[in-house]
Amino acid sequence: MSEKRLRILLVGASGTLGRAVAAELSQRHEVIAAGRSSGSIRIDLTDVQSILRGLKEAGELDAVISAAGRVTFAPLADFKPAALGESLHTLGITDKLLGQVNLALAARDHLRDGGSITLTTGILSEQPIVAGSSASMVNGAVEAFVRAAAVELPRGLRINVISPTVLTEAMPSYGPFFRGFEPVTAARAALAFSRSVEGAQTGQVYKVF
Amino acid sequence: MSEKRLRILLVGASGTLGRAVAAELSQRHEVIAAGRSSGSIRIDLTDVQSILRGLKEAGELDAVISAAGRVTFAPLADFKPAALGESLHTLGITDKLLGQVNLALAARDHLRDGGSITLTTGILSEQPIVAGSSASMVNGAVEAFVRAAAVELPRGLRINVISPTVLTEAMPSYGPFFRGFEPVTAARAALAFSRSVEGAQTGQVYKVF
Repeated sequence: MSEKRLRILLVGASGTLGRAVAAELSQRHEVIAAGRSSGSIRIDLTDVQSILRGLKEAGELDAVISAAGRVTFAPLADFKPAALGESLHTLGITDKLLGQVNLALAARDHLRDGGSITLTTGILSEQPIVAGSSASMVNGAVEAFVRAAAVELPRGLRINVISPTVLTEAMPSYGPFFRGFEPVTAARAALAFSRSVEGAQTGQVYKVF
Repeated sequence: MSEKRLRILLVGASGTLGRAVAAELSQRHEVIAAGRSSGSIRIDLTDVQSILRGLKEAGELDAVISAAGRVTFAPLADFKPAALGESLHTLGITDKLLGQVNLALAARDHLRDGGSITLTTGILSEQPIVAGSSASMVNGAVEAFVRAAAVELPRGLRINVISPTVLTEAMPSYGPFFRGFEPVTAARAALAFSRSVEGAQTGQVYKVF
């Protein structure tokens, strides 16, 4: 059985997770690397025009993946009631939340029939940690959006989200925040991206924990 | 056993759900009605200053409840990639999401020790409907925020969220969007607010479906 070779745009390709996703998928498919400050295509999730331009540059695509998304980690005590723009939630809302949602909406208008969209969240949507309230909030938003968008996507398009726990590779820096969490390697988390892109399900949250 | 009489600020007191919550809790407690365009205190969730001013006007409080939160219902096809302010997600993000989060953060700084915060989401975080992707997204965000904030709140403060299914009273207008959903009366949903305020749990999503 010979598989179809897919053209995949990978946003966040230079990150720890992104590199593992590229390593996994480029064994069988064409992976186009995109990122804010590296990659053959420059996409900043907070800049809608860069998303639209990046997809246009990429040309015909069978899959769009985001392994990107920034959010502010800070103690709840530091979060003050504040309007968007002044709130510590602003980065998470504009980048990891609306940035990924905008990428999905742009991909919907761009992908070949039957193509797939795969976003990234993380374990904090379910299991909170100190200083992680904004990450939890944003992850919960993206996961619920994916479940909902799946029932309305046209042309056989699919959408899923990968929720990894803390990565083994990130433990040197994030370890103190994730005591007692069992880390997974980026390579193992990358398998879930393969399941989303090369599988057939939609509206799924693939938990890697 | 005599119960302590609580002072409760109820935002969204004039809505279908809010009226039922007021009816339930005012049997045993002092309920101060707040709302965007009615109530003894005016609070617009999108206006941080109105939240801060409203809490100050209310004085000492044992509980803050939101039975408010607006969001845009529209087919996914109508959602275009767009920056905040131009996106159809803007109302949900600034009102039901950040508005409720800001109310919670302001209540954290204002409530008496051991007080409680209760927010509102809805079944769409788990069970999507056509035209509900923004509501799903926002509900998922608020629920995950509540789980996370609960582990960091000071002074014995608690936070929960009530997720009702479609209300019986709303079926004449929302029925076509919620075919096959079993509605609950606002009075039954109001019991969950009583459980949150008069109970002892924190970080819970009380599902009324």
